[in-house]
Amino acid sequence: MSFLTHLEAVVNSVEGALACSVMGFDGIAVETHTKSSPEDIELQNTWVEYANVLSQMKSAAELLKTGEISEVSINTERLITLMRMVSPDYFLVLAMSPDGNYGKGRYVLRITAPKVKAEL
Amino acid sequence: MSFLTHLEAVVNSVEGALACSVMGFDGIAVETHTKSSPEDIELQNTWVEYANVLSQMKSAAELLKTGEISEVSINTERLITLMRMVSPDYFLVLAMSPDGNYGKGRYVLRITAPKVKAEL
Repeated sequence: MSFLTHLEAVVNSVEGALACSVMGFDGIAVETHTKSSPEDIELQNTWVEYANVLSQMKSAAELLKTGEISEVSINTERLITLMRMVSPDYFLVLAMSPDGNYGKGRYVLRITAPKVKAEL
Repeated sequence: MSFLTHLEAVVNSVEGALACSVMGFDGIAVETHTKSSPEDIELQNTWVEYANVLSQMKSAAELLKTGEISEVSINTERLITLMRMVSPDYFLVLAMSPDGNYGKGRYVLRITAPKVKAEL
């Protein structure tokens, strides 16, 4: 099974999901499945910005003794973004509309992360 | 009603809640109610770091056209942190243990933010 199959499964099983991607912390997407993109919002640019923020938090976590980061969500007026760590170098990111199923999105990313990790 | 009453109400109504604070984006806490602090983790230091990250995301949001940030969560092995915007200058932050009631935490912050805003 390829990454893409997992990403499609995530997007198809979560109400309000727009796109899902496996990304490196350098902001480069390994693979992306896009169902639809909200008008005016460049998801890739947004994810690059968020990957940058995630990298900083990863570095801070050691100093702060909070343990490794497992999940981050950033919700704005027009976009819900869920991120789930896959490995020290990669994470899953799911973009959803603001009325999307947040709980289902978290759940599906949590069960998908080990599947993606097994193929890295 | 003071900020502190609201913060106590948040901590007391969410299972697994450790502490709640009204913070400025400069990382300075206006008021904090702490029920318990996890061993080794300095919540204040963690929040200062997160406030810094939040500031960056606020700046990025305009460029990215995602609309204003409403809510951010950062979950690590030892700590769940929920943040909810109150005004352009202040936000609520709630620290929870990893087995805390995440959904309840989000809900309680959402209904508490307008109450805190009314007193700013």
